[in-house]
Amino acid sequence: MAGRSDFTRGNGHGPPAVPVDAAFTVEHLHRLRFTRHALDPSNPVLREVLGPAETSSGRVLCFADGGVIDAWPELADQVEQYIRSVPGFEPAGSLRRVPGGEAAKNDWRVFEQVTRAIHDEGVCRHSTVLVIGGGAVLDVVGFAAATAHRGVRLVRMPSTTLAQADAGIGVKNGVNAFGTKNFLGTFAVPRAVIIDEAFLATLDDRDWRCGLSEAVKVALLKDERFFETIETTAGRLRDRDRSAMRRVVRRSAELHLQHIVTCGDPFELSGARPLDFGHWSAHKLEQLTGFRMRHGEAVAIGVALDVVYSAMTGRLAGSDAARIVAVLQDLGFTLHDAALGDSALFDGLEEFREHLGGRLAITLLEGIGRPVEVHEMDHRRLADAVEQLGRMTQGSRTT
Amino acid sequence: MAGRSDFTRGNGHGPPAVPVDAAFTVEHLHRLRFTRHALDPSNPVLREVLGPAETSSGRVLCFADGGVIDAWPELADQVEQYIRSVPGFEPAGSLRRVPGGEAAKNDWRVFEQVTRAIHDEGVCRHSTVLVIGGGAVLDVVGFAAATAHRGVRLVRMPSTTLAQADAGIGVKNGVNAFGTKNFLGTFAVPRAVIIDEAFLATLDDRDWRCGLSEAVKVALLKDERFFETIETTAGRLRDRDRSAMRRVVRRSAELHLQHIVTCGDPFELSGARPLDFGHWSAHKLEQLTGFRMRHGEAVAIGVALDVVYSAMTGRLAGSDAARIVAVLQDLGFTLHDAALGDSALFDGLEEFREHLGGRLAITLLEGIGRPVEVHEMDHRRLADAVEQLGRMTQGSRTT
Repeated sequence: MAGRSDFTRGNGHGPPAVPVDAAFTVEHLHRLRFTRHALDPSNPVLREVLGPAETSSGRVLCFADGGVIDAWPELADQVEQYIRSVPGFEPAGSLRRVPGGEAAKNDWRVFEQVTRAIHDEGVCRHSTVLVIGGGAVLDVVGFAAATAHRGVRLVRMPSTTLAQADAGIGVKNGVNAFGTKNFLGTFAVPRAVIIDEAFLATLDDRDWRCGLSEAVKVALLKDERFFETIETTAGRLRDRDRSAMRRVVRRSAELHLQHIVTCGDPFELSGARPLDFGHWSAHKLEQLTGFRMRHGEAVAIGVALDVVYSAMTGRLAGSDAARIVAVLQDLGFTLHDAALGDSALFDGLEEFREHLGGRLAITLLEGIGRPVEVHEMDHRRLADAVEQLGRMTQGSRTT
Repeated sequence: MAGRSDFTRGNGHGPPAVPVDAAFTVEHLHRLRFTRHALDPSNPVLREVLGPAETSSGRVLCFADGGVIDAWPELADQVEQYIRSVPGFEPAGSLRRVPGGEAAKNDWRVFEQVTRAIHDEGVCRHSTVLVIGGGAVLDVVGFAAATAHRGVRLVRMPSTTLAQADAGIGVKNGVNAFGTKNFLGTFAVPRAVIIDEAFLATLDDRDWRCGLSEAVKVALLKDERFFETIETTAGRLRDRDRSAMRRVVRRSAELHLQHIVTCGDPFELSGARPLDFGHWSAHKLEQLTGFRMRHGEAVAIGVALDVVYSAMTGRLAGSDAARIVAVLQDLGFTLHDAALGDSALFDGLEEFREHLGGRLAITLLEGIGRPVEVHEMDHRRLADAVEQLGRMTQGSRTT
């Protein structure tokens, strides 16, 4: 705590005062665990992150995505039995269902129900909220857990490839408000994130695929060898090969977490947000299609568009751009959509800038694994990039 | 980022996985400024904490407590002129009125109005919300500012002695929900807190006094000399001597901030909360009296009760207890109230424990400036302490 004693002296506004600039740091610990069948009582992973009992109230309140409960009808019993098997712990009421998908974030009543459950079940700051689900459910339950009592312990078990590879790893939560995605939320570090690959078995093909575009994104930003792994296993990934998916989800999750921890700006106080590569248009495409397009699908198009733009503006080799677009297609993503022709698409740039605050900051590529930040995009060339992407993917339009 | 490679290997749940324990720190800077007439355009304090313009959107959205606007009708114009006088800055709409007092925290619509204003005025993460008011208004606007866009910059100008000496300094915000005080909120570090002594001139006598009990509290915990200062100037403080109040408010604010910065637990992750000395009963007294008793008044009684209890249990010299009770009375506080006889008072202990989570942690005194943490209170002796406090303050019952 440093005091500077000469600051407001002699300004004529009252007697000398000593302004205080109090700098302090807060330590955080983010635990990432990979496993299969986390709710089997013989699996130690969840037990380890809940404990030790002496530092906890022992109460665990569980929420699950309606989609997960429908796919795993035995879930409520499994959760209850698991928690009862941990010495010193007990469930705080039975498993609560949260509607899945973006609806959970658009309906304020879901946030209210989750916070009310935390209140009514006597969950305190030394109790744990366990949430199992896709990104939207993790977001709304996370926001409730971060604000009830100013923050109760949160253990996330993401259930989709997208949530396991990206959305469920981060230190954000939130709900939509006033028509703006994620308008209300906080930065909050979960106590732990447990990636249980068993949940992926019941995903439909679109949700199975959705996490792969975020994996491609983070590979392009951080790890050329990881991109090559995705490239060489694209066919297996599309065909639901579990061991190929396990490798990609884990590496993507690690890279996302590594970025948060090592970027020096985990709570995004600066204007830059490199992990949002391809996202300015992806967010807008979701909105323009009324969320018909899922986030992972929109990110595939958004990444492809900014890759083509990177090449058209001389930053990235054309052969690399073609290679990246081909990988996204090999993974099964459709890279053309009528919404790409909507002139409102480019409004996404300004909305992205507003959301970041301050100056526009967009990530492009100079090479695979070599991002570069730019502060403007040329609308004419962007329109050319949309056309070029259309030409590149024309062959696949009939598939 | 440390990886431990032996953790989940060989547990039979899928292939070997490497759990990641990612530790990271986040740096915070809390600026505390003391001045008079902060909104006079020649006063540099607010300008300094807003800037520099290059790192900001330049937009400043202002909220003020209805009570402050009523006492200072020229406030809206002053705020607007001040912001326009700062190069690169402009007001984001005109000053918005927020109802003062606990009502602002009990009515969810106030939070909604504040967040909607932040949305509608295009306030981004590089814009500033300026809030002028008492503790309740700072809390609800602070919660909105901390969650809109996951946190916009917040500059607080507390307008009461209580907010200037304590509530407006901290790193918390919140609203009441489900009948529980501060049930929803966050820990968030303001960009700056500006203590403008000019606002104190228009307070009624009760609000003038209310900050003094928190000053006594923090003096008893941290600074024997500061307690002696309050003791020797008690008559002047009661008689609204501005220079005596300035000294007390500043030292109290500094001590509160110093605690947050140096305690090692600014976001209260442990169960202890030493600054809440005397507060377990204070919170309950407010509730039992339907908030007829103001927070500072309840804290005076709560501190007196735990001081007497400290003496009755042999921790504190009886002469020190008598001295502290006398100072609180000299400051003008009434230390007896029918609610002290309500058997529900002691429920405040369990509610306090629930709110902290985990084990009960209560601060008592071993001496002036020498706190001690205990983990239980004897209800019979507490009842004796209530009676004893009644006897000690009997002489003042006719005043």
